[in-house]
Amino acid sequence: MIHSNEDTIYAPATIPGTGAITLIRVSGKDAFRIADQIVVCRKGNIAEAEGNTVKFGTVFQEDGQPLDEVLVSVYRAPHSYTGEDSVEISCHASSYICSQMMSLLSDAGGRAAGPGEFTERAFVNGKMDLAEAEAVADLISSQNEASHRVAFNQLKGGFSKELATMRGELLEITSLMELELDFSEEEVEFADRKRLGELLDKVLSRIDDLADSFRLGNAIRNGVPVVIVGATNTGKSTLLNALLGDDRAIVSDIAGTTRDTVEETLNLDGMLFRFIDTAGIRETSESIEKIGIERTFRKISEAEIVLGLLDLSKSEGEISEEASMIAGKVDFRRQELVFLLNKEDVLGSNKNVTVANNIVSLIENKYNDVKSVLMISAKTGEGLDELKGLLSSSRKGFLGGNDAVLVTNIRHYEALRRTSEALCRVKDGLAKGIPTDLVSQDLREALYHLGTIVGEVTTDEVLGNIFSHFCIGK
Amino acid sequence: MIHSNEDTIYAPATIPGTGAITLIRVSGKDAFRIADQIVVCRKGNIAEAEGNTVKFGTVFQEDGQPLDEVLVSVYRAPHSYTGEDSVEISCHASSYICSQMMSLLSDAGGRAAGPGEFTERAFVNGKMDLAEAEAVADLISSQNEASHRVAFNQLKGGFSKELATMRGELLEITSLMELELDFSEEEVEFADRKRLGELLDKVLSRIDDLADSFRLGNAIRNGVPVVIVGATNTGKSTLLNALLGDDRAIVSDIAGTTRDTVEETLNLDGMLFRFIDTAGIRETSESIEKIGIERTFRKISEAEIVLGLLDLSKSEGEISEEASMIAGKVDFRRQELVFLLNKEDVLGSNKNVTVANNIVSLIENKYNDVKSVLMISAKTGEGLDELKGLLSSSRKGFLGGNDAVLVTNIRHYEALRRTSEALCRVKDGLAKGIPTDLVSQDLREALYHLGTIVGEVTTDEVLGNIFSHFCIGK
Repeated sequence: MIHSNEDTIYAPATIPGTGAITLIRVSGKDAFRIADQIVVCRKGNIAEAEGNTVKFGTVFQEDGQPLDEVLVSVYRAPHSYTGEDSVEISCHASSYICSQMMSLLSDAGGRAAGPGEFTERAFVNGKMDLAEAEAVADLISSQNEASHRVAFNQLKGGFSKELATMRGELLEITSLMELELDFSEEEVEFADRKRLGELLDKVLSRIDDLADSFRLGNAIRNGVPVVIVGATNTGKSTLLNALLGDDRAIVSDIAGTTRDTVEETLNLDGMLFRFIDTAGIRETSESIEKIGIERTFRKISEAEIVLGLLDLSKSEGEISEEASMIAGKVDFRRQELVFLLNKEDVLGSNKNVTVANNIVSLIENKYNDVKSVLMISAKTGEGLDELKGLLSSSRKGFLGGNDAVLVTNIRHYEALRRTSEALCRVKDGLAKGIPTDLVSQDLREALYHLGTIVGEVTTDEVLGNIFSHFCIGK
Repeated sequence: MIHSNEDTIYAPATIPGTGAITLIRVSGKDAFRIADQIVVCRKGNIAEAEGNTVKFGTVFQEDGQPLDEVLVSVYRAPHSYTGEDSVEISCHASSYICSQMMSLLSDAGGRAAGPGEFTERAFVNGKMDLAEAEAVADLISSQNEASHRVAFNQLKGGFSKELATMRGELLEITSLMELELDFSEEEVEFADRKRLGELLDKVLSRIDDLADSFRLGNAIRNGVPVVIVGATNTGKSTLLNALLGDDRAIVSDIAGTTRDTVEETLNLDGMLFRFIDTAGIRETSESIEKIGIERTFRKISEAEIVLGLLDLSKSEGEISEEASMIAGKVDFRRQELVFLLNKEDVLGSNKNVTVANNIVSLIENKYNDVKSVLMISAKTGEGLDELKGLLSSSRKGFLGGNDAVLVTNIRHYEALRRTSEALCRVKDGLAKGIPTDLVSQDLREALYHLGTIVGEVTTDEVLGNIFSHFCIGK
């Protein structure tokens, strides 16, 4: 372990100095002794209190001055978050009181907890596996229904159950192969070889499905990537601002939830959409501008949904040319393209409206794969509700009743990929008649990688990396 | 009351979205029913739980999806903060979970609590008097030992006890006067008149002492006001930055603790010092600059400690002139003046040092009332520790062992002043032989004003004003 589990650790579980109450967690074998040392309870002491009870007491400072009146919740091992003896001290949320509490706890023999150390102990003490522990951080950072549901399902072991099933199947494969190994010198070809092949295919397809769910899981966790593309001055920024409006997503400042680049996110019907900025595209010979446009094209490839913005005030020829430039960059197998005919507000006469309708038909006919063509005005807000409805309904299935297990964590995704690769080698080896003992090594590797997800096998480095992204006090 | 106490109220007692745990308070007659409606406990229900116990359960959303696993602390009336049936629900600190919890609590029949409404209920239900309730907000915003001690003492009724004693004495005066009133027609002069005068003097002097303690109490609560004065370019800003350094006071963002003007504060040995910026002073005929200098002089009058900054690189004559300009603005009866000879670092040769020492002696001799003359260098930090030591030791007495009651609240101060004024009229009236029944009215007024402090008599407006400065959830 990175930290010693012999220590009794403490940390505020709430940010000190803000709000009405600060909750301080203390966990470890000396939790009760330490709590009794700094809190004088009105009745009896903490060490003798029953589990799951709350005691009222006064904290005194070293000079005998009272510091605060507190409530102490007592949790007896193993019936606590960490699985150890624990107390939660609820004091007034003053920065002075909190800092004094920290120094009293330290003087009494406690150690300040590192990020995620309480959850790490819960993992070490078998209260949850590693995937469940990781879901705690995801649950805290969830900002919408979809990501919350996926995280809660993972926290409650939904993902772990799926992995346990696969592990069982891999173990069955192992024993089948060992059986072969035992008889290998006699070169006996068992009837079980068919069963082996079937099992391998089954588990491989399951693992690949899970790994594939990462794209969706990641979109749910971090937002469905949507890119707004268009020529310069078609109103991309106006559209983004109009879409965000008062619904502008609040980015929380929890450690471990900060994304590498802060992008604008929008919550639509419980689903998070992440809007990616792009520079305006146009034909240019200017080399610096070309770089910007190349970057825009790269960003298009990251998106799941491309909003192609066209300017109705331009000529039909120009619009058509811009539309084909955008459509040419979209991979219709995995991306959706929605054309937005902007500046509806500039359409004055009936004639113009007819022209606009012609353009819509033209585009709809030209690009079979286009999901939709909408007339909007980013300026007046016309058509934006329709666009929002289109976006949210396009991902409605994510929130459907089924609680399919989704991979949301890149660590899990990579472990699944490695498991899959090792299993492919197993399959390949068996097909090529490679000796079973060599193939077995790949199988062990597959089991190893699968085991890293729930933490059956793990290293200090992996644990350190996971829990350092938690907040203090969790 | 401003709010209905019939409602069951709820609010997060911690800031949602940050930290490991969000604590949500629910208080009122339906607290247990509402909690049972949204939390399914593993064993038994909340309404039947004993007081001061913690139950583990799962919160479900309207669609039957689980929202979170929570701990519910149960407090039975009157053994709770508010004196009502209350629960505290501890859930994961996710903004999504918190907002869903709020809507579930609302749907179950709760009402979102206003700022300070839990403490207001504690007052209404007789768990604390008004002065004690006000101390809760002070305790939370305390950032150092001195202000914490004063607030905690007030919270624990130290101030209220003092007021109760005075109230007892005022009531004794009332009964003595009523005795006179009963016999007034017989024009009997009682021997008790002497006792009456003695009591009046005693209680008046007590009240005036308390009111006078506001200056000190306010300094402890908001910081001892220190002004740095000097000619332009003597290094005032450099000095301020050097003093603050990494110790720069953190201004908390708790509602109700924000001061009208944000000034730089520094915590020295548990005492808060508040530094007031000034414009440089110099002889000028320019009218706009004159206004600035007038403002500086006004700020000097607000300070308890004046740091007069002089520039050692100037001539002896200039320094002497600036020193006398500063000293002339200091009221030595209530202010302390410390001269700082800055730019010690420019002193190169021995000769210069001698000159500097001469200046020190000169000033020390010229101004008997100057507390100290220090040589410093704001640039190199030379002498600043000595200055900090001087500041903190000058107010060391505040932290002394005695727990003298101090008035820190302008509302209390004003009520004490009004009590004092009414009592002066009583004294005056008695001396002038004004009929006792007229004098009685002033006495009743004195009792009234004294009563407003602990909330024996109060108005919705007063309560609204007090509790609106609390944070939500307190």
